[in-house]
Amino acid sequence: MSEKTIKGRKLVKGIAPNVDADALLNDKRKVFLFGSPSYTNIGDQAIAYAIEKFIRNHFPYYEYIEIMDYANDEGIELVKEIIKEDDIVGYTGGGNLGSLYLDIEEDRRKVFESFKNYKTISFPQSVYFEDTEEGQTEKKKTQDAYHQNPNLTIAARENQTVDVVKETFRSPVIYTPDMVLSLDIEPRDLHREGVLFVLRADKEKVTEEDFISELMSWAEETGSVERTDTVLSEVDIIDYKDREKYFMKTLDKIASSKLIITDRLHAMIFSIMTKTPCLVFGNSYGKAKHSYIDWLSEINFVEYTDKKDIDQLKPIIERLLKAEPNSIDVRKDFKPLRDLLKS
Amino acid sequence: MSEKTIKGRKLVKGIAPNVDADALLNDKRKVFLFGSPSYTNIGDQAIAYAIEKFIRNHFPYYEYIEIMDYANDEGIELVKEIIKEDDIVGYTGGGNLGSLYLDIEEDRRKVFESFKNYKTISFPQSVYFEDTEEGQTEKKKTQDAYHQNPNLTIAARENQTVDVVKETFRSPVIYTPDMVLSLDIEPRDLHREGVLFVLRADKEKVTEEDFISELMSWAEETGSVERTDTVLSEVDIIDYKDREKYFMKTLDKIASSKLIITDRLHAMIFSIMTKTPCLVFGNSYGKAKHSYIDWLSEINFVEYTDKKDIDQLKPIIERLLKAEPNSIDVRKDFKPLRDLLKS
Repeated sequence: MSEKTIKGRKLVKGIAPNVDADALLNDKRKVFLFGSPSYTNIGDQAIAYAIEKFIRNHFPYYEYIEIMDYANDEGIELVKEIIKEDDIVGYTGGGNLGSLYLDIEEDRRKVFESFKNYKTISFPQSVYFEDTEEGQTEKKKTQDAYHQNPNLTIAARENQTVDVVKETFRSPVIYTPDMVLSLDIEPRDLHREGVLFVLRADKEKVTEEDFISELMSWAEETGSVERTDTVLSEVDIIDYKDREKYFMKTLDKIASSKLIITDRLHAMIFSIMTKTPCLVFGNSYGKAKHSYIDWLSEINFVEYTDKKDIDQLKPIIERLLKAEPNSIDVRKDFKPLRDLLKS
Repeated sequence: MSEKTIKGRKLVKGIAPNVDADALLNDKRKVFLFGSPSYTNIGDQAIAYAIEKFIRNHFPYYEYIEIMDYANDEGIELVKEIIKEDDIVGYTGGGNLGSLYLDIEEDRRKVFESFKNYKTISFPQSVYFEDTEEGQTEKKKTQDAYHQNPNLTIAARENQTVDVVKETFRSPVIYTPDMVLSLDIEPRDLHREGVLFVLRADKEKVTEEDFISELMSWAEETGSVERTDTVLSEVDIIDYKDREKYFMKTLDKIASSKLIITDRLHAMIFSIMTKTPCLVFGNSYGKAKHSYIDWLSEINFVEYTDKKDIDQLKPIIERLLKAEPNSIDVRKDFKPLRDLLKS
């Protein structure tokens, strides 16, 4: 066996970036994770990071093998050659199962169709198909693909997604938090300065620019203000080997702010991880809102709000800034996923 | 920089087996772990495995670098060249701080002396100096070495060791469970068969052979019986790259038994991890006993006993075999170690 060819197939870049090539052919039970992101959304990068930690910590006797998104087709062909009866196929978690990110959805359909005879897991997702003709057409395509796989289980990260999955698919559904909440990183004590706005610039954005401007002007009265996003613009791709570095950089950015104002689910989650006060607004279909309501509402330094009146928001922010940060432990809530991976 | 030389020093085998050579020179804060075991005691192998997981899970922004026991002197010289003010030096945990394992104790003295200007951590240990002339001479040597290091903190894994450390050393002491209890490995469901005796064959052994024979004869009436030890004899050394493999193999051995009878602390801990009923006897200075009493007595399928009368042991074993295995979570008890590593 050379490092370039496995069972006659070329081992192209993006297949198994996280292991030595010989790991593909050892006799361990394997978990193949497809959809490992190369795009610069740090939320999705953190999810893939967390899935790897989850499998390696709880199932060190499995071989965990990632396939990057850009190598999906070649990865499917190679895995078909080496997969054994007992192996597990997964597709990464996130908020992209549905009609909003069709490149990803098309990859996922291919994976679930291709491995219909193997235990298949869709890692925790929010599911959303737009209520438009195009959205419903895509829903049908997704149903047709997933329904070919009788061994698929879909993990939902909010209660509302559990309902959507039950209405849409025949697959069993399990309910767990977002994978990033399974991490247990000790927050760094960094000097905190200013208010950081972490705001969407994509099709899920619903927070109006006028309101954002008003909020930013108000915040400027109290000190420095900066605006950013959890989708990085300074790089074009983030490959496996750089994932941890960019994730840590983003966590440090959050941890060195006095207050986060965001409409990003993962800016909220990173705030929780770093004990940073955080006010959260919604996106187009409520994924930050419902993760907050379902799992995180007991956190005293983070609050979700639909209010858009600064005078109503001030006392909330005041309260978040004053709170002695508490903690919650949702790691027990991943039990359904542990049980599924174990069986 | 070549992979063979770092700052003019040869990177010999055993230095940094867990990272690429360039990790030695990046700008991350570093944790150098000395004493990483190459000997075949799977308890000590599991401790080093757990320390690595602990640092990588909770402090992914640190660079974690191991130095194998057989490269101690060369490792000290190399680390002296590259260490920076804020870095951390650690020596692995176990039950070997004292006069019983002098080769290890001599290495540890050298490490603590060599890095007296850096934050230094002795990972969770049992401490025991024999009450003999030689034992007390060694204690004096250890005191002289450790007392040169004003930045040393000693972690004790039993209450009795906290007392010994306070009486013996000037260093601050923290109290945590054995590092292996920080792991969260999902136990495998394996077919269980027979009674496995896991028994010491070393200087800490106090369980008499006559009694063992009697117990084994009794066990043979109920099915198959096997005798082993957590010190492997089929290999001479276990290097970093093979650590996980042998650890998993030992866990599987425990998990495929109906009952463990042992005088080994880590056979008890592996039983807890795999939900295997386990009866525990003592060693020469009570390390299994006190870990049990201090941290683990609420486990309903494991029991420590000093009894040596089979008729008294039968009902205990009966009870352990019938128990629906419960679980405890001692991971919160590692907080003093997390705080120390963070500061």
